[in-house]
Amino acid sequence: MKKRLFTPGPTPIPETVMLKMAEPIIHHRNPEFNEVLTRVNKNLKYLFQTEQPVLTLTCSGTGGVESTFVSLFSPGDTIISVNGGKFGERWVKMPKAFGMNVVEIKTQWGKAPTADQILTALKANPAAKAVYLVHSETSTGTATDVKSMAKLIRENSSALVCVDGITAIGAHEMRFDEWGIDVCVTGSQKGLMIPPGLAFVAVSQRAVAMMESSKMPKFYFDLRKAVKSHADNDTPFTPAVSLIIGVDAALEMIRVEGIENVWKRHERLATALRAGVVGLGLKLFSDSPSFAVTPVWVPDGVAWKAFNKVLKGEIGITIAGGQDDYKDKIFRVSHLGYYDELDMIAFVGALERTLSTVGYKFTVGSGLAATQNAFLTMK
Amino acid sequence: MKKRLFTPGPTPIPETVMLKMAEPIIHHRNPEFNEVLTRVNKNLKYLFQTEQPVLTLTCSGTGGVESTFVSLFSPGDTIISVNGGKFGERWVKMPKAFGMNVVEIKTQWGKAPTADQILTALKANPAAKAVYLVHSETSTGTATDVKSMAKLIRENSSALVCVDGITAIGAHEMRFDEWGIDVCVTGSQKGLMIPPGLAFVAVSQRAVAMMESSKMPKFYFDLRKAVKSHADNDTPFTPAVSLIIGVDAALEMIRVEGIENVWKRHERLATALRAGVVGLGLKLFSDSPSFAVTPVWVPDGVAWKAFNKVLKGEIGITIAGGQDDYKDKIFRVSHLGYYDELDMIAFVGALERTLSTVGYKFTVGSGLAATQNAFLTMK
Repeated sequence: MKKRLFTPGPTPIPETVMLKMAEPIIHHRNPEFNEVLTRVNKNLKYLFQTEQPVLTLTCSGTGGVESTFVSLFSPGDTIISVNGGKFGERWVKMPKAFGMNVVEIKTQWGKAPTADQILTALKANPAAKAVYLVHSETSTGTATDVKSMAKLIRENSSALVCVDGITAIGAHEMRFDEWGIDVCVTGSQKGLMIPPGLAFVAVSQRAVAMMESSKMPKFYFDLRKAVKSHADNDTPFTPAVSLIIGVDAALEMIRVEGIENVWKRHERLATALRAGVVGLGLKLFSDSPSFAVTPVWVPDGVAWKAFNKVLKGEIGITIAGGQDDYKDKIFRVSHLGYYDELDMIAFVGALERTLSTVGYKFTVGSGLAATQNAFLTMK
Repeated sequence: MKKRLFTPGPTPIPETVMLKMAEPIIHHRNPEFNEVLTRVNKNLKYLFQTEQPVLTLTCSGTGGVESTFVSLFSPGDTIISVNGGKFGERWVKMPKAFGMNVVEIKTQWGKAPTADQILTALKANPAAKAVYLVHSETSTGTATDVKSMAKLIRENSSALVCVDGITAIGAHEMRFDEWGIDVCVTGSQKGLMIPPGLAFVAVSQRAVAMMESSKMPKFYFDLRKAVKSHADNDTPFTPAVSLIIGVDAALEMIRVEGIENVWKRHERLATALRAGVVGLGLKLFSDSPSFAVTPVWVPDGVAWKAFNKVLKGEIGITIAGGQDDYKDKIFRVSHLGYYDELDMIAFVGALERTLSTVGYKFTVGSGLAATQNAFLTMK
């Protein structure tokens, strides 16, 4: 049985990238690797649309976000953090673990924060040093309008604009410099199409300046060291060499496709998949749908476990289930990274077969037709 | 030109392991991956010779050691740390960065700490909560007799015995339980023969108990979370999936060879390489030579740069130079991981050719003969 992965990280790895990573390893303090890292650093700037350094750390995306808390702030500092899902929740818990004062903006799962919520929190907390936003919340498939929020924050405060871009980078437009973002983090196993193990952290000049006054204890996640090494296209500690070689190949693919085209492709995939799902009479979960992952309500009369048993066990497709309150209630289909339009059609084909097997009533082909129509009529 | 890597991390990756890591990626919250991690956890116990958990973290070896400081101790706690090289030095700086009180035992580069030094430090600091030892100091190719030191520490104090086993595990005998070790850390790109990006941390029951009273701020490196996930053969955060699949294959190779045979092989490689080097009239750097890496004085009249230019540029062999005070004065040859006896003979062959090209006087074949004789006469 042919296996297909539709999970929001790890995402499928292009075959050429897999083989590149399987080449004999090179030493990280050698000119060959310096050449690779020089190119990676340049192409990461293109990915984030920035002239600022994008730092590469060997850790998961969570480690990448932690590096921003411990490197920019001090215990007792106030930040505002938007919690609309599992990851937003983590960016509330984590700074608290480091003794920070966290103002939480809680939004219902599936809803993006509003301008009013951000503005109210900023006015009530003029000393807030940063606002943390989740660009695409993986647990809810919900996108935040980072461009507008950044503008709002910049116009109304001196707080840094910090973005969890972990499942957004590569799927959603990100113009780090133009939008005035100060921190944006992503992970390797997402839009970058390589295995997990690397985090990438873009930092503005304001963020770099704040590192000087940070009193947080740190060593491995000290971004001052990373900024310093970055200037020499080096890393402070032994990096995950094979993954960096993979990201070099993946970034080259993104550069060749063109970042605007990559964003547009994700928007098309998400839009057509949603059309297919709706065409089958299923309901979408999010009010502000992400281009990276689409959560769908498990239809009435269908049990998630039986549904997934068919999809995974008989058809070979791995997707993600719901989390916390939405466990067994929603399923999440990812289209982040190495996917094209025919992959969406194949997925909807699998979805139809699965729904049919578990006894859900629908017109066979209606989901496929809706998907195809959406692609062919979209601008 | 055929390239050969003789560096102490990254070390060469067996071809079968490279190809295993190049297989299509699987999701980390799925039964297939749980199966892999269950096997990895079991085989890691064999590697460390322990019944205690060996935790897998996505970071470099430095991150692995950091996890022990932040998870076991509190600011103000006293530890004793042996500094006999670049890494020992790091395990003095790092706990200081976290507000700990560090008693430093400084040894000359190339010399191992003595029982007297440890005993004196323990007597002068009865409140010391741990002693940090470097099993094989990479910068100096010097081994510490961890078995004897652990016995001494156990008999004279209640301090935990913490071991940087980063370049030792797989090369030097390690019997975590039998020797009464409390913490031992290694990295993936060393004796484990896979690319960098993972750290492995073995923790005794005493170490796990100490985690409860630790007041250090932490999140990503919180080993309580890792211990809890380990019980379910899971990880707290997205792990470096492809590297864990690689380590699964590498651990299987170690299991098949037998850990005692792996240790013995490294001892033989190191011993014969030293014989070859001495046979050429070169001088060894360390008084207590490691089985993982052999540092050699650059001979009088030879310039390191010219020497390395021939070895790397004309012969294709990458080794490591000296660091700090020993920059340009020593070179370091690694035989850690995926090496056999013919690799050592090939290396000495390359060394003879390089020395000949840079004008060093010796009898051609004397190094090779000494290496071969050492292998054939060793028990």
